[in-house]
Amino acid sequence: MARITDPAILIPGARQGDRRALARLITLVENGGPTSDAVLAELFPGGGSAWTTGLTGAPGAGKSTLTDRLITVVRAEGSEVAVVAVDPSSPFSGGAVLGDRVRMQDHVDDTGVYIRSMASRGHLGGIAAATPRIVATLDGLGFPEILVETVGVGQAEVEIASNADTTLVVVNPGWGDSVQAAKAGLLEIGDVFVVNKADRPGVAETVRDLKQMLELGAAPGWAPPVITTVAATGEGIEDLWAAVRSHRSHMTSSGDLVEERRSRLIAEMESALLAGLRQRVRSSVPAETWAGLTDQVADRQLDPWNAASRLLLALSD
Amino acid sequence: MARITDPAILIPGARQGDRRALARLITLVENGGPTSDAVLAELFPGGGSAWTTGLTGAPGAGKSTLTDRLITVVRAEGSEVAVVAVDPSSPFSGGAVLGDRVRMQDHVDDTGVYIRSMASRGHLGGIAAATPRIVATLDGLGFPEILVETVGVGQAEVEIASNADTTLVVVNPGWGDSVQAAKAGLLEIGDVFVVNKADRPGVAETVRDLKQMLELGAAPGWAPPVITTVAATGEGIEDLWAAVRSHRSHMTSSGDLVEERRSRLIAEMESALLAGLRQRVRSSVPAETWAGLTDQVADRQLDPWNAASRLLLALSD
Repeated sequence: MARITDPAILIPGARQGDRRALARLITLVENGGPTSDAVLAELFPGGGSAWTTGLTGAPGAGKSTLTDRLITVVRAEGSEVAVVAVDPSSPFSGGAVLGDRVRMQDHVDDTGVYIRSMASRGHLGGIAAATPRIVATLDGLGFPEILVETVGVGQAEVEIASNADTTLVVVNPGWGDSVQAAKAGLLEIGDVFVVNKADRPGVAETVRDLKQMLELGAAPGWAPPVITTVAATGEGIEDLWAAVRSHRSHMTSSGDLVEERRSRLIAEMESALLAGLRQRVRSSVPAETWAGLTDQVADRQLDPWNAASRLLLALSD
Repeated sequence: MARITDPAILIPGARQGDRRALARLITLVENGGPTSDAVLAELFPGGGSAWTTGLTGAPGAGKSTLTDRLITVVRAEGSEVAVVAVDPSSPFSGGAVLGDRVRMQDHVDDTGVYIRSMASRGHLGGIAAATPRIVATLDGLGFPEILVETVGVGQAEVEIASNADTTLVVVNPGWGDSVQAAKAGLLEIGDVFVVNKADRPGVAETVRDLKQMLELGAAPGWAPPVITTVAATGEGIEDLWAAVRSHRSHMTSSGDLVEERRSRLIAEMESALLAGLRQRVRSSVPAETWAGLTDQVADRQLDPWNAASRLLLALSD
């Protein structure tokens, strides 16, 4: 039988809980272009109800184990949950040690959980561009909770996590980790901070340091709490989820949610437009022209501004 | 007499030290477009010899006073120097208290110093886009030293400063200031760190904290030194300039300079291309169309990806 790639068949299938149809649908959306546009035109109007929670932090901070625990909490509440893992070290993406992988299997047979790994597909820029579309698809299909896990290294990954309704920043005990988080720009984007592996020494100091750093130049409004967890045992997970819920209440009652989502949608439109323009340049300008201009610029034979003008001219032809 | 705006007249004038011709030339370049392209096509091939030093840090850290002191050091060496101030609080931009302004007057009659303020012109995005062109113009005209002062708040300003051959990050004594610098992403971009106002308490702790933070996750190669200064009295300025010189030697002898400048030129070409594409969208798509799509997206009546596709389509018509 031919592989079904018709959204008109896949969308109803996915709605009825067919995980294979869902996976194919997501692949269509991930690939972009007119088919992706058609899927989103169909699903976007029904969306807007999902709560997206982004998790980010340094590799090894325990993001995947936390995600695993949060899945369990959400499922215990009776809600379906989708996970998007944009993290090459995530066990969801197959990049983890055996112990993790075995544990993740707990959710494999649960039809209320859908896990999508994006670690091995394409380059990161493409993944980063596709993630908001995938989240919108899952939202439009009715998943009430969406968890997005990204490694907190590099601008693209950090942006993906900060593009959520609630962003969790995960660190470990130790002075260096909080400072690394600061250096990576994570203090600016966290709505809730998690000191995971809190059975290790130095927890109190890390919590204090984080709070001090967060208070510096803090904006009025939501004050990000610092929660301690031991994801490996499940300790503190209920508190963490309560903090996510509390942030949700704050965002909803303050009206910040409406404003923030509007801004995110407009930013996404502009970013999709720029991606489309870049794509158009790539397909209109012969690769040799591009390479030739780049070489001339790199060798200072041509200034970058006249090179750009020539590319713009080539685009009009 | 009509205001001369012909680059063929302004360029030789600027080369001969006519500061009014230079100012007009820079305005042409700042405004962009074909005239700017013509100026840069003429001047870029003769450039590449200037050393650009970016200064950034929080408002009030003393960047302008440091810049003032560095001008004096450079002039004492016999070199001409150009200053580009992209900082609304800079006395170079007229935003300072009387005392600063009076001091800056020292350089007004020195024909070896050219100061360009960009604080009050256009929006920041435009200034940020124009700054590399202005620096290239000053370089092409033969200024051997170019200082670029920006306030270290906001991505655009930080990018301008990091776009220099040597980037100085200025902080003040006190635990909070270094952490604020970390939060603002300044630890990642500094080649030399300056603890200014070092006559205040807490200097040793700030130097230690900065060094510790810098050592965390440090890359091999250049290890950014931390210099203490009291710009108001001139204390430490010679050490600071020696550090800039030392960074210059490292960059030159390691070959990093060639690589870094090549990357910056290519990045500038791509950024100029994107700016041109954005401009083209703005002039091709009627303002009402744009506003209408934006409103529909913000209100979730239309998804951002189909909105972007419609804009791309409008552009092709």
